[in-house]
Amino acid sequence: MHDIGDDIGRRRWAIAEGYIPSQSAFSDRALISHETACILNAGDAEAHVSITVFFADREPVGPYRVTVAPRRTLHLRFNDLKDPAPIPRDTDYASVFVSDVPIVVQHTRMDTRRAEVSLLSTIAYAEA
Amino acid sequence: MHDIGDDIGRRRWAIAEGYIPSQSAFSDRALISHETACILNAGDAEAHVSITVFFADREPVGPYRVTVAPRRTLHLRFNDLKDPAPIPRDTDYASVFVSDVPIVVQHTRMDTRRAEVSLLSTIAYAEA
Amino acid sequence: MHDIGDDIGRRRWAIAEGYIPSQSAFSDRALISHETACILNAGDAEAHVSITVFFADREPVGPYRVTVAPRRTLHLRFNDLKDPAPIPRDTDYASVFVSDVPIVVQHTRMDTRRAEVSLLSTIAYAEA
Amino acid sequence: MHDIGDDIGRRRWAIAEGYIPSQSAFSDRALISHETACILNAGDAEAHVSITVFFADREPVGPYRVTVAPRRTLHLRFNDLKDPAPIPRDTDYASVFVSDVPIVVQHTRMDTRRAEVSLLSTIAYAEA
Repeated sequence: MHDIGDDIGRRRWAIAEGYIPSQSAFSDRALISHETACILNAGDAEAHVSITVFFADREPVGPYRVTVAPRRTLHLRFNDLKDPAPIPRDTDYASVFVSDVPIVVQHTRMDTRRAEVSLLSTIAYAEA
Repeated sequence: MHDIGDDIGRRRWAIAEGYIPSQSAFSDRALISHETACILNAGDAEAHVSITVFFADREPVGPYRVTVAPRRTLHLRFNDLKDPAPIPRDTDYASVFVSDVPIVVQHTRMDTRRAEVSLLSTIAYAEA
Repeated sequence: MHDIGDDIGRRRWAIAEGYIPSQSAFSDRALISHETACILNAGDAEAHVSITVFFADREPVGPYRVTVAPRRTLHLRFNDLKDPAPIPRDTDYASVFVSDVPIVVQHTRMDTRRAEVSLLSTIAYAEA
Repeated sequence: MHDIGDDIGRRRWAIAEGYIPSQSAFSDRALISHETACILNAGDAEAHVSITVFFADREPVGPYRVTVAPRRTLHLRFNDLKDPAPIPRDTDYASVFVSDVPIVVQHTRMDTRRAEVSLLSTIAYAEA
């Protein structure tokens, strides 16, 4: 059924924007300020993804390792990353994703510092 | 007149983000929370598009089949997909589009969970 | 000074999303609901751009013709297009841009149907 | 650790959209209306970046010069650019980035003219 989507994507992706506000007008998990890397693995093999997080004024942190099962999507919240270290709030960062099989990466922020929801999204930069 | 735009686009597209909030502050169709795949078929042949929807924790669903007439755009609401199954609300998903002729795909969400309109949009990932 | 940016871009661009809300909470031109095609001509020759607008249920309209001077950007409001016909409000559309020299096209909507500002933006799809 | 991300990116980038509202509903720096070019230098050499800013009705201004250290991200606010000239507010502009090593550029606007936060973001156009 889905074989037409097999191996769509690239192995290296970069998101130059990154910023998780520490404040949220809501306590509901769905509405807490967060950034997400939406990862699609449309193929039939597990995707082993290594994420490196870059900062303005110190060495990068990583790799964070996640596995995306075949034919699955993982909407990974940067807020939830813990190992090797949590992503600091109110801090500029960027990220690079390297996968052993083709994936697709899209970046999203929900910002609820103020009383309403604000959203941004963009396809990440793909290479190779 | 439009022949300069003939066959612009690609045949395979992926949108890694997908999430339709179940809540809306409005009942007007235009302002109900929704996600849209904006499909442009600028060419002179019908585009037969097969859409596969991917989830975090179960097998993909599809294909959903849509036809976009020559020289037409279809702004397809994921909310309206029914066959083979509706897209669940409040659930992470992703999608892959495969067309028999070149098309262009852009992704948009309108989120009106709270009392105001929030929007995101990005060009989808294209291949082949 | 700017010669390093000479001839950056492509000649054909497509924006699959298009929708101008007829309503605005504000009367200030800057805050009226609008969609914009931001066109950059970084080169040293005039860009002659032909725009074709596509709809869901009728033949495309165009070409709309605009000229972007060398080393200039034109943030063209779809709201302002008049010849050969204005863009209808509350109507799905899409657009294709063809230029005789390389340009860069980015798409933006400001939506102020409700009392606040909502924004979306994405790079357009580029080819050739 | 991060060598897998070495030299990801391109050397030339363009952002066709540019507009810094002069108004902000907030005085907190984080919430003042601004536009940002998020630059990622994932490689092991300094990135020397020259930025040229284009306008609708006058010659481009630049180059603005910034250096991004190896393995760092710089989220550069257009609001903060001063040399050779500040970016005028309430004015359409566009920008081209040229780097001596591969970088990734993403564009973001926070618009707080009204009492809430509105965001847009897109990957920039990449070449060469």
